[in-house]
Order: sequence, then C-alpha cells, then structure tokens
Amino acid sequence: MRIDIVTVLPELLRSPFEASILKRAIEKGLVEVHLHNLRDYASNRYKQVDDYAFGGGAGMVLMPGPLDRCLQALTSEREYDEVIYMTPDGHPLKQAMANGLSLKRNLLILCGHYKGIDQRIRDLWVTREISIGDYVLSGGELAAAVLCDAVIRLLPGVLNDETSALTDTFQDNLLAPPVYTRPREFKGLKVPEVLLGGDFNKIEDWREEQAYRRTMERRPDLLNLPDGSKME
Amino acid sequence: MRIDIVTVLPELLRSPFEASILKRAIEKGLVEVHLHNLRDYASNRYKQVDDYAFGGGAGMVLMPGPLDRCLQALTSEREYDEVIYMTPDGHPLKQAMANGLSLKRNLLILCGHYKGIDQRIRDLWVTREISIGDYVLSGGELAAAVLCDAVIRLLPGVLNDETSALTDTFQDNLLAPPVYTRPREFKGLKVPEVLLGGDFNKIEDWREEQAYRRTMERRPDLLNLPDGSKME
Repeated sequence: MRIDIVTVLPELLRSPFEASILKRAIEKGLVEVHLHNLRDYASNRYKQVDDYAFGGGAGMVLMPGPLDRCLQALTSEREYDEVIYMTPDGHPLKQAMANGLSLKRNLLILCGHYKGIDQRIRDLWVTREISIGDYVLSGGELAAAVLCDAVIRLLPGVLNDETSALTDTFQDNLLAPPVYTRPREFKGLKVPEVLLGGDFNKIEDWREEQAYRRTMERRPDLLNLPDGSKME
Repeated sequence: MRIDIVTVLPELLRSPFEASILKRAIEKGLVEVHLHNLRDYASNRYKQVDDYAFGGGAGMVLMPGPLDRCLQALTSEREYDEVIYMTPDGHPLKQAMANGLSLKRNLLILCGHYKGIDQRIRDLWVTREISIGDYVLSGGELAAAVLCDAVIRLLPGVLNDETSALTDTFQDNLLAPPVYTRPREFKGLKVPEVLLGGDFNKIEDWREEQAYRRTMERRPDLLNLPDGSKME
C-alpha cells in the first residue's frame, strides 16, 4: 500500500510515522507513506497557499490553485483508489471503513487547515470525505495520522500477532471486555477467578458476557448496527 | 492549563506538540504539556511495563504497577480535575465535551497500548474514559494528541481570531457551509454570487441554508441532538 498525504504542516506528521507500529510497517516495506508540502505547489514567491474567505468571516481557506497543481502532479504519476479529504463534515470513520480502505493500493489524503479547503477542490477531485469524529481540530493532519494508523495496523504482517486485530473492539460491534495481567492481586483487587482457571470455553463465555454488558451500559447504539463487516 | 500525558511512546507525540497551533499555545504560556514515559516507572531492569493477558488471547496488557506508581507520583504533586483514559470503549468525544474540558486546569491523560491497560487501574484511578471514534488505533497516543488539539485550540488566546472557533462545525449542531477563496472562477467553477455581493445578511442566510442542507444530507442524526453547549 502507498499513502500520499498533502499538508501545509509535514513537520507535524513526522513523529507518528517514525515510531511504533507505523514505523515498523514502513521498515518492513508493507506501506509507503509520502508527505507532500503544499507550499511546494504555491505560485508566488511568498509561497502563499491560503487566502481570505469570500463573503467574509474568520479563518483562512486553502486556495484551489496549489491543491490542484499538487493533485495533478501526483495523479499523473499513479492512479489513486481514493482521493480523501479529512473534514469534520465528512463521513464518520468507523472500523468497517478502515477495514475497507486497508484493501486499497494507493490512497491520497488531503489535510485541510483553518477553515478548510476551497469547495471547488472538493467538487473536482475528492472521492471520499472522512471525519474522525464530531469535534473540530486545528487541521487535518492529526486526523490523517489517525486514519493511517487505523488502516495500516490492519495490513497483513503489520501486527506481530495476526489474530490480535480480529479480537479488537468494534470488529463484532461489541466493546472489548476488561483485560488483566499480573499480579493476581493488586491493591486488594483480584483478577476474576475464571481468567485464572484455564477453562478456555468458560473464559470465552465470560469475555462475551462482559463485552455485551459493557456495550449495553456504554454504547447501546452499537448493538443496533448491521454486521460490522460491511464497508460504508 | 496543564496537561500530563503518560505513554510508552513519548517520541510518537513530539512533533504534534512542536508544530502549528499547539506549539504556539505552549510558547505563549497558555498551556503546558508534559510527556511522561511509563518505562521510567517500571520496577525491573528490563523496564517491563506490559505482560500477557490472564485468560490468554493475543495482545499485551499494560501492568498495573508502573501505571500506579506514575499516577501516585503525579497526583502527589498537584490535583487533577480529570484522570482520562483514552480507549475505544470510552465515552465518544464530541465538541461539547471538548468545550467542557477546555475550562479545566489540570488534566492527566493515560495512553493505552496493544490490548489496553489492566482493568484495576481503570477502577482505581480513572475518572473519565474517552474514545475519539468507533475504530481501533495501535495505541492511545494519537487519540491523546487529538483530544489535546480539540481542547487547546479553544483556550482563549490560542487562535488568532477568537471568533473563528465559534463558527466551527458542531458548535451549533450543524456542519459547516462550503467555503471559497480566490480566484472567483477556477476551472470553470464560479464562487456563488451571493458571497461576492457584500450583503452581509444575505451571506448569513445563504451560509445557514447551506449548513442546514449539508447536515440534512450527510448527518441528519446531528439535527436531533439537544443544544450543543451542554457537557456530556
């Protein structure tokens, strides 16, 4: 898989891709991530990429020209399965969408900044608008990093133990059950007996019941969803 | 405001706090962000902080001992308004929650990794569990960065133009209307006439209508929510 990210702040995105699982995935050659500085596609000598919004109001807007030149350059080199724009008014990212995107070959991700990008770039280029949640960030960079992490960890070979991703929260529309590790007793709190017994069927039953109970208590909305495997 | 973040991967979090708005907020003294390496609180010479889950299954669990020692140390130095654990089974982050947290003085954020943290730390210490969305990440670090960005940008003085945050998506349960900047015509696509006219009332009406229409099309669920100002 190859991911290209277009941003005015490539430096913000460095450390997430230089640590942990994303770093390992890149080193193993399972994914390539390329950061593109939008200012490299500016046309004036001030490297201007944003301007005031027509109609007034606070906040700058990323100009169509530099984005269009950058997209022309990238799409002339390869075909992208999706041109994604990270925006709070996009389609909410869910695990099923991450599953679907992890099967693609080339993804291009645009990060907005301030008030966002000129609407015409969305009309002309963007094939999928994604929101990571119902809150506003100062730019699309962290949202892009979140999307990359959610997708890249699903690529075969990225996680050390392949079964780990399958038992995650959301893969079956249930929250995860509680987890415990050593010691058996900590500050008077004991690990539930069933987890120590070695009866695998009982452990599975307990986990399922706990997962169901936690989901009922915290997120009953998840229980009404269709099966998690479908791509939205 | 002061934010302390406990993580096994402090290096992952460096660049988001060294760029853009978060960097400026820190430089202006509007917020302090302290990263704490959980391994500094390990008790053996291998700096071990995770172990296998009781009951078996894939994925490691962060041990209660190091987390407890770290939390003891931090809470002995100051009082925290909230001890937050970033987890996909937490309460979904919404703009109203970010608004509420932006009024706090000291926040402590725990980042899980792999399968998460021992349940007993959640029982003993955590006052608020927050999820940034219905998907799984390889750790809580990017989720913590997202939460910090959403909260810090709301602190008075962080954004250059204070009115900007108030016109964001979600502050009124509506998605944002389209935005445009120069040029007036781009690849045959024109900026809507009303935005060029200078009639401020008409512009406001147009934006409200566009915001409402976009919300109806994309996120009708938002229109049924109570007023956005209440803290969940």
